[in-house]
Amino acid sequence: MKLIILIHCPDQPGIIHSTTGFIANIGGNVVYLDQHVDKQAEVFFMRLECEFQKELDLSIFKDNFAQIASQYTMQWNVYTDTEKPKMALFVSKYNHCLYDLLSRYQSGELWVDIPFILSNHSVLEYIGKQFQIPYYHIPVTKETKEEAEIEQLRYLMEHKVDFIVLARYMQIVSAKIIDQFPNRIINIHHSFLPAFAGAKPYHAAFNRGVKIIGATSHYVTEELDAGPIIEQDVATVSHTHSVKDFIAKGRDLEKIVLARAVKLHLTRKTMVYNNKTVVFS
Amino acid sequence: MKLIILIHCPDQPGIIHSTTGFIANIGGNVVYLDQHVDKQAEVFFMRLECEFQKELDLSIFKDNFAQIASQYTMQWNVYTDTEKPKMALFVSKYNHCLYDLLSRYQSGELWVDIPFILSNHSVLEYIGKQFQIPYYHIPVTKETKEEAEIEQLRYLMEHKVDFIVLARYMQIVSAKIIDQFPNRIINIHHSFLPAFAGAKPYHAAFNRGVKIIGATSHYVTEELDAGPIIEQDVATVSHTHSVKDFIAKGRDLEKIVLARAVKLHLTRKTMVYNNKTVVFS
Amino acid sequence: MKLIILIHCPDQPGIIHSTTGFIANIGGNVVYLDQHVDKQAEVFFMRLECEFQKELDLSIFKDNFAQIASQYTMQWNVYTDTEKPKMALFVSKYNHCLYDLLSRYQSGELWVDIPFILSNHSVLEYIGKQFQIPYYHIPVTKETKEEAEIEQLRYLMEHKVDFIVLARYMQIVSAKIIDQFPNRIINIHHSFLPAFAGAKPYHAAFNRGVKIIGATSHYVTEELDAGPIIEQDVATVSHTHSVKDFIAKGRDLEKIVLARAVKLHLTRKTMVYNNKTVVFS
Amino acid sequence: MKLIILIHCPDQPGIIHSTTGFIANIGGNVVYLDQHVDKQAEVFFMRLECEFQKELDLSIFKDNFAQIASQYTMQWNVYTDTEKPKMALFVSKYNHCLYDLLSRYQSGELWVDIPFILSNHSVLEYIGKQFQIPYYHIPVTKETKEEAEIEQLRYLMEHKVDFIVLARYMQIVSAKIIDQFPNRIINIHHSFLPAFAGAKPYHAAFNRGVKIIGATSHYVTEELDAGPIIEQDVATVSHTHSVKDFIAKGRDLEKIVLARAVKLHLTRKTMVYNNKTVVFS
Repeated sequence: MKLIILIHCPDQPGIIHSTTGFIANIGGNVVYLDQHVDKQAEVFFMRLECEFQKELDLSIFKDNFAQIASQYTMQWNVYTDTEKPKMALFVSKYNHCLYDLLSRYQSGELWVDIPFILSNHSVLEYIGKQFQIPYYHIPVTKETKEEAEIEQLRYLMEHKVDFIVLARYMQIVSAKIIDQFPNRIINIHHSFLPAFAGAKPYHAAFNRGVKIIGATSHYVTEELDAGPIIEQDVATVSHTHSVKDFIAKGRDLEKIVLARAVKLHLTRKTMVYNNKTVVFS
Repeated sequence: MKLIILIHCPDQPGIIHSTTGFIANIGGNVVYLDQHVDKQAEVFFMRLECEFQKELDLSIFKDNFAQIASQYTMQWNVYTDTEKPKMALFVSKYNHCLYDLLSRYQSGELWVDIPFILSNHSVLEYIGKQFQIPYYHIPVTKETKEEAEIEQLRYLMEHKVDFIVLARYMQIVSAKIIDQFPNRIINIHHSFLPAFAGAKPYHAAFNRGVKIIGATSHYVTEELDAGPIIEQDVATVSHTHSVKDFIAKGRDLEKIVLARAVKLHLTRKTMVYNNKTVVFS
Repeated sequence: MKLIILIHCPDQPGIIHSTTGFIANIGGNVVYLDQHVDKQAEVFFMRLECEFQKELDLSIFKDNFAQIASQYTMQWNVYTDTEKPKMALFVSKYNHCLYDLLSRYQSGELWVDIPFILSNHSVLEYIGKQFQIPYYHIPVTKETKEEAEIEQLRYLMEHKVDFIVLARYMQIVSAKIIDQFPNRIINIHHSFLPAFAGAKPYHAAFNRGVKIIGATSHYVTEELDAGPIIEQDVATVSHTHSVKDFIAKGRDLEKIVLARAVKLHLTRKTMVYNNKTVVFS
Repeated sequence: MKLIILIHCPDQPGIIHSTTGFIANIGGNVVYLDQHVDKQAEVFFMRLECEFQKELDLSIFKDNFAQIASQYTMQWNVYTDTEKPKMALFVSKYNHCLYDLLSRYQSGELWVDIPFILSNHSVLEYIGKQFQIPYYHIPVTKETKEEAEIEQLRYLMEHKVDFIVLARYMQIVSAKIIDQFPNRIINIHHSFLPAFAGAKPYHAAFNRGVKIIGATSHYVTEELDAGPIIEQDVATVSHTHSVKDFIAKGRDLEKIVLARAVKLHLTRKTMVYNNKTVVFS
């Protein structure tokens, strides 16, 4: 049995020694340990994987670990390799990120369950059918937005969704949903943030005459396109490229960057602090 | 003898045919031709290199070419491979871009003359001595800025400088100088523009938690950090990097990106239109 | 109506002038022209797009163009924007390249027909069904290889296939097929060629301790993994990555690089000469 | 006072716990810990930085640490932040890497002493003068090679050189020197190894028609260009680039990649095992 433990706490001597000692005492073997100290904020971060020969009673583990944790004022989480996370996919009309995630899912590349795809449009319903995943069509207008989000939340709760991926979902998600999924909604924005936040970033990039375009995956917060960045990548462009070419090049960036962010989240390699991420290797 | 001709004009049929016909008629051989049509602006751009067995009288060439040019309402320039351009280097206290350009110059990598280095500080004077290039120290304060720029202009005119490179010159250049050197002042900004324009971009990038930093070389216009972009490049960073690490990584980006922009300018591969560049390959 | 013309011939003065003159005379407007001179081989390459207000009789165009062509000893091809090319997909057991190409096809990103998918295994048949494309399963063993290739050729001829994409087809294609499709079979090799040609390149890269892995798309020739390279890309790796991680990272490279090569081929941007490609922008 | 400890040993439980316990007991605070397990070789690697309020007697520290070390069969090294390493630079005729390293040195970017530059040619002697660093000219011919290496070794010993950087030194270094500096000679090879090992890699890359070129920094072993890779980077090229362009682009890669490798070595971030490197972040 394997556990992944994520910890952050005020920086102080002895944290690694105490934590690894606790693991050793209960018969665990640390197979991965990475730590980081944010010297400005004086915060210590650690990600630790440990293996146990026998099954552990997780609630007993948690009770015992809580004692060390309180000694160091830790914020912490523990994850097992037996509970498969549940990921909801929100889309609008673009299919490239959706196809990309679903083909990875079907290949077994992502250790995850996908209880449903949710969209404000019906145009991608055929992809749900191709992959035999329920597709919920919830139209959103200014007038119906609140109501629509209540319905969305109902589905999210009913299916016990762990996190949401906005795979080019062209709607702004409101606090009602964000508050239920803090640092658990992953968006892909089609620019190299913080450049070109908001609508039509490829058009803005084209007009500015940039030589490189980008894509950014981040956790969603209430401020638009301003949440903690998980992953970014770029591609070169030139004067020979039209806005349409930017968009075509960008599609490849978007799907790869989003997939990387989803994998980092799934493997518990991300921690959020001060609106920034620690991304363990 | 070799000529490089840069042209832009309203897009219309026959431009290439007429121009290459003109070259052929006077005994030239086109060895390079690249063209671009900005479909939005309906503007045609062309860069053409042609070789002649005998020496040409450039003023006669220009008179004759002017006839075709007027037929197509061309804006055009012609350059020979016999006049070496003169480049002035403006620096403040950072030496990495200066060292990089001077070592390229000394190796013969840049076909250019460097009549002087100019700085608002004296700290890099030793580098001028190392490379035996005059170093003019003109301090700049709020009060003396106007006066200082007059002195700068005097040096620029006296040495018949063709273009200026701001090799991490930490002062804002005013219209007085820009107007004399339109699209002939090259700056290196230490961010991936338009993100983090202005002061302290590495600090801003660090605070935003980006995963990629960049550098941008552009022609200087009156609006700060908003001129036509010539070249950009990026490097990955992570939570493990401090602001100091960003700065160190950034130095390598800055010097390479600036050197590429200088080379493109020197080889007449850039054209400016609508605050954007066409950069021929 | 739009034509794309690809030309190569011995380098000599006047080619551009004559060709653009011919186009102008028959009422065409050159909307794109890119040329390249291989100075070592003294060969001239040109790609030209031209638009005509009226429909052209293509056979008359060809007859007339042949006269200029013979004058300059041109090898040339002309393509219209009305005949959609036919692309056959060959796969084995990996689905990432197949999914990627099919989702691009379904989105209209690739202007192509896909008459069939062909495989030596049946495992990906379900994807053919998902996308409603015929899937031909032709098992290949040492003994049956010749026979299998005859059957493959039959399908290729029957469907008038223009070019073949080996989307991680783990078999060596023999001269029997290559000869019928010279520079019209596109392979994706999972290394940065010429490093790690042949089998198990990720294992070899891991054992060598490289810090960057790559993928290479090339036209297939009789010598294994030695054909003209169309497109390459790379990704960074470190000591923390296992062979399995190399393979996972590589999948993303492979599908993106292959898709780019397919697009370049489809838009007639590639020319082959001396086992190298000219790839127009 | 700060110590950097590098350890590798057979993988087994308790290493981190014991080591951090030892540090804590003698009043140290771990400010950085990164570890890696090579699962194939079953070897554990760790890099640890710790700070002490008071000065430590290093020989007592070593005696005490040796006890833990022997318990886990560790290979280990400890470095202080008070002994500045001594780096010898070997060059031939190219100046770009030399200029780059010296300008970093002069800026204080590299915490190192450079007792001398050594070359088989005299052409770069002026750079030694520019930077006031002794320049030893030791010509090398087939006949004098053995003798020349004896002289080189004499300089290396006399100046107590810690490691050697071959900054485009175009000679093969023989075992006589390598044996004295195991994993302490850093070379820059102008290709993306293992592609194009040996002489004239840019010519080979050009002939193969690659779309990406690279540079590789590695520790020198007796087998040419086959030592443990420290750092690699790449740049895109196209059919428009001549061999000369490859060389010019390559120069920028070479100097940046070599500088990164030198910095990693200087900050004790590299460990060598099985002809591969672990490079800590």
